Amino acid sequence: MSLPQTRHLALDLADGVLRVTLDRPDVSNALNGEMVEELAATVEAIRDDRSVRALVLQGRGRHFCAGADLKSIAGDSGAEARSRVVAFNRRFGEVLARIDSAPQAVAVVAQGAALGGGFGLLCVSDIAVVTRDAKMGMPETRLGLPAAQILPFVVARIGLTQARRIAMCGLRFDGAEAYRLGVAHELADDADDAASRLESVLADIRACAPGANAATKQILGALGVAPTPELLDTAAERFADCLTGDEGREGTRAFTEKRPPSWVSDQ
Amino acid sequence: MSLPQTRHLALDLADGVLRVTLDRPDVSNALNGEMVEELAATVEAIRDDRSVRALVLQGRGRHFCAGADLKSIAGDSGAEARSRVVAFNRRFGEVLARIDSAPQAVAVVAQGAALGGGFGLLCVSDIAVVTRDAKMGMPETRLGLPAAQILPFVVARIGLTQARRIAMCGLRFDGAEAYRLGVAHELADDADDAASRLESVLADIRACAPGANAATKQILGALGVAPTPELLDTAAERFADCLTGDEGREGTRAFTEKRPPSWVSDQ
Amino acid sequence: MSLPQTRHLALDLADGVLRVTLDRPDVSNALNGEMVEELAATVEAIRDDRSVRALVLQGRGRHFCAGADLKSIAGDSGAEARSRVVAFNRRFGEVLARIDSAPQAVAVVAQGAALGGGFGLLCVSDIAVVTRDAKMGMPETRLGLPAAQILPFVVARIGLTQARRIAMCGLRFDGAEAYRLGVAHELADDADDAASRLESVLADIRACAPGANAATKQILGALGVAPTPELLDTAAERFADCLTGDEGREGTRAFTEKRPPSWVSDQ
Repeated sequence: MSLPQTRHLALDLADGVLRVTLDRPDVSNALNGEMVEELAATVEAIRDDRSVRALVLQGRGRHFCAGADLKSIAGDSGAEARSRVVAFNRRFGEVLARIDSAPQAVAVVAQGAALGGGFGLLCVSDIAVVTRDAKMGMPETRLGLPAAQILPFVVARIGLTQARRIAMCGLRFDGAEAYRLGVAHELADDADDAASRLESVLADIRACAPGANAATKQILGALGVAPTPELLDTAAERFADCLTGDEGREGTRAFTEKRPPSWVSDQ
Repeated sequence: MSLPQTRHLALDLADGVLRVTLDRPDVSNALNGEMVEELAATVEAIRDDRSVRALVLQGRGRHFCAGADLKSIAGDSGAEARSRVVAFNRRFGEVLARIDSAPQAVAVVAQGAALGGGFGLLCVSDIAVVTRDAKMGMPETRLGLPAAQILPFVVARIGLTQARRIAMCGLRFDGAEAYRLGVAHELADDADDAASRLESVLADIRACAPGANAATKQILGALGVAPTPELLDTAAERFADCLTGDEGREGTRAFTEKRPPSWVSDQ
Repeated sequence: MSLPQTRHLALDLADGVLRVTLDRPDVSNALNGEMVEELAATVEAIRDDRSVRALVLQGRGRHFCAGADLKSIAGDSGAEARSRVVAFNRRFGEVLARIDSAPQAVAVVAQGAALGGGFGLLCVSDIAVVTRDAKMGMPETRLGLPAAQILPFVVARIGLTQARRIAMCGLRFDGAEAYRLGVAHELADDADDAASRLESVLADIRACAPGANAATKQILGALGVAPTPELLDTAAERFADCLTGDEGREGTRAFTEKRPPSWVSDQ
């Protein structure tokens, strides 16, 4: 097995654990197309290697992941821009699905921002450790965008009841609330505590047989809890409609210009 | 957009929020056929109007909604009576599904009784605020009736595990337990506190873009969490079997006569 | 209605309640093929008898049920051994599905071990009462085996998020954690407290009409939350692959010999 060359991810394989660090700290590890492809290639590279027992996803610096790097995809209207947005959004859903169904145990450790797409990554882990000061949630609708690819994974994670409130109110919440909602399995006081809890989780995973764990993930994947491709297609279309439409263009412009969007200021 | 004429609902549209007040306080806002149709017409009237950002459902007086007005549908056996019961029950499920998938954010504020069908209305909201003294639950089986149209929405709301216990034991529970079970998102000390929490929820909703919220609801609707028409058909048949059969007739009679039904007193 | 002759179950029918006691206390009530068939025959015998209002599952002695009696099925590799394992595992899933959909209310009272298959039995109850000192969970993967037939029922019980952590880490947890996770509805201090809580649950069940409860269970069964036969088939194949493969044979041998398996000791 050979790991891919990556620019936006730092990869470290040792003692059967592949640690993947999102490595764009200057933009709070926001997801651009290249980083998404590198995640896909990394998960693919280890898929058939049972000597890799666990995959750990974490973020360099103060934040886990601030979500999609909208600047890299936003701005224009028109059919071509729309197609680009559909493709980017849909591909991210595909990569979420691949992480969700990785044969290895997947752990995520999140501090700081874990918003939008970053929240989605948290929701496809087998075990999530978050710090008290982490900020999770789905603020998309405040930017004029729907929660799209991540929504089915969020609903699978915390249920419809909480997911619909968070999405329709564009809420953010801290680590303690994430633990209460069941987003996260472990609540850490700080980064050191999170690291120590992760080691304990990895010891549990190492006590389990790698083939048995892979078989368990295969059965989980067959449960029908994961979203269908058709559903993710629909979600990508709705996301592109919004981002290339009036609301999404206004919302992302207002965000960049640090002013309230028209649907707030016009009231 | 023009709102329907309604007799059992009081409608108030202001600042992008449509407040719908169940308005039969003398019968604890019990649902009859006319009120159900008025709910359907109201949701339909605002469906395509993005200037309506939120729909608030509340009840006039001490109670939110005591459930179906069984007196208006119960009593007889025979094929004609059975057909009437199937139609009433099934139509209520259809209206629940329409509220569940309304493009606007839907908030419910419940005090006092929120039982049976009233509990169902609570379960199709995006955000539910309940007071500590509220009484929620599914006492249907104690009346000789199955939890029918509401059951799929209750399971989507709080999961199978709690729903089966509540239904099979005919339980009622208060606001604090509703909050613990995840039925409600906000627990209010009293009506004033509930009103103030609602205002805060509406402020969150107004911060979200209306089209993005509608797109989010569309994706939620595509998740397959909502019940199929076939399932609601089956539930209506089982409800009618019970209500027009020995148990349902005995149960509703015993309820009216304020005595225990035979399956309790015969033991 | 006549109850089946049983060797590994003690049956006691009184006041509309059938109490089924797993009765192999010398092996912590581990499930062998015969006990599974006796469970199937018992559920079948009462299926159409509405005078039986509740089914109570409990265990003789210190434990509820330690899971599958692996000694009775494990050991060999080869196609014939594999077929035997597939058949045993798949049949247990079928029996879980039948208990899950029994028209009567089903209560489980668990003390001590409720592991693997015993945990599965807990997860198909309408009401579960556990004692604080109970030990629940899915340690299968530590034995080189996947959580197989029970996994879909566990996911229906506590959701995907907690189920995947427990399975991929091979975790056990006590009664208080089971209550927090929603596995159990009632947390009892000890056996006496559990017995008294059970009586209170049975009083609730007796207040509900038997036909209405059966109709409610029928609607719950139509929700599509229960696993499909195809899913249980897949799970049985994966279980047999593991048990007759290197990991399962090593894991069960290590367990018998009270030593760590190779995937732990080789690190």
